[in-house]
Amino acid sequence: MSGRSVTEFYGIGVGPGDPELITLKAARLIAQLPVLAYPAPLEGESLARRIAAAHIPAGAIEIPIRMPMSPAHTPAFDAYDRAAQEIDAHLKAGRKVGVLCEGDPLLYGSFVYLLERLGDRHPATIVPGVSSMMACAALARFPLATQDGSVALAPASLPEAELERRLAHADSAVLFKVGRHLDTVARVLERLGMAEGAVYVARAGQAGETILPLAEARARGGIYFAMVLARKSAR
Amino acid sequence: MSGRSVTEFYGIGVGPGDPELITLKAARLIAQLPVLAYPAPLEGESLARRIAAAHIPAGAIEIPIRMPMSPAHTPAFDAYDRAAQEIDAHLKAGRKVGVLCEGDPLLYGSFVYLLERLGDRHPATIVPGVSSMMACAALARFPLATQDGSVALAPASLPEAELERRLAHADSAVLFKVGRHLDTVARVLERLGMAEGAVYVARAGQAGETILPLAEARARGGIYFAMVLARKSAR
Repeated sequence: MSGRSVTEFYGIGVGPGDPELITLKAARLIAQLPVLAYPAPLEGESLARRIAAAHIPAGAIEIPIRMPMSPAHTPAFDAYDRAAQEIDAHLKAGRKVGVLCEGDPLLYGSFVYLLERLGDRHPATIVPGVSSMMACAALARFPLATQDGSVALAPASLPEAELERRLAHADSAVLFKVGRHLDTVARVLERLGMAEGAVYVARAGQAGETILPLAEARARGGIYFAMVLARKSAR
Repeated sequence: MSGRSVTEFYGIGVGPGDPELITLKAARLIAQLPVLAYPAPLEGESLARRIAAAHIPAGAIEIPIRMPMSPAHTPAFDAYDRAAQEIDAHLKAGRKVGVLCEGDPLLYGSFVYLLERLGDRHPATIVPGVSSMMACAALARFPLATQDGSVALAPASLPEAELERRLAHADSAVLFKVGRHLDTVARVLERLGMAEGAVYVARAGQAGETILPLAEARARGGIYFAMVLARKSAR
């Protein structure tokens, strides 16, 4: 808790998708670390790896942490257990390990599950990253908060009444992982007087980037990695 | 709102303080743009400029936006008016202008005041940055949110009852600009069952960096640019 210690275990935010939104620190560490782990779908390419690809040296040992990328409610604990064992073995052998994380490692990031499994034995150095929240707001030119404003962040998968409770007293709202919950989100925002001006952003900084007014997105139907930004109309 | 247009006006997040937490995109743009504006105290050095210093070319035209840096409630609207006029003149003359912003431009950033004054005439390209929220969480190894968690962001300067209302239904809380409001923040967190494990972080990634349990920080007294991270004990 107090101060920093020299560690060999790194959680590295690689930003929201645009490879240019990686930090200098992340790029430097990725180029230096001998072992790199990252979440990956059961088959195919890891988004975190793709974002960082330009900085990964040819000789790096790579550990894809393969798991279902569906919006399931239960994290793939088995996959994290196995990855934690593999990472632990490298660290014990004196090899520094970095875990690449989309966005920021500690805001809705799966790195927390590895931290829970390894943090006691291997104090982590965490490199913060640009969150998808900031990337979506930037694309939509949507101020998240000024001087006295409060912001509520919530996953759209919460039960409707619970979601409403979490957003009720905020000046603006950021809904993560909207996808098939778009109708629920829209209803809640309407009841709270936050639907007007609300924006839907999907695949920020990646192929298929989409920025739409909420009502229009609702007509088209959402996708999983989308976000909705909203604020109270009476300001 | 929909899609991007080619613009000459940039809001550039330079991250929370550590010059290595700037993004590749921010560094590239700062090196290229002929005119750079940034908030600065009435006398002395601008933090945003200091973070970006390594990338600023010798020949750049610089516009320090000087204003009181005290935790006053009223932003320095006169200073923004004057800066907006100056920026407008450069843009009209065909010179590209970047505004450097500590952290992220749209999360408690003063860039919003320039966007309000110039956004209609000069659609801005906004480069998101790592927020102090992420930097503080990283230093404290404090998970902000996992799967189903919600997060409330609020300025500590809100009236006590109002602050409590904003945080009441969140799983974790991020309090900005804590400073002299540390006692208020601590009382609210205690009533909400969020005081246990709460962390105080000041000057993240800069000289004088401080990470303390909330109770200990309270005994010492806070400073303005500090942050408190907290979460519900029963998870």
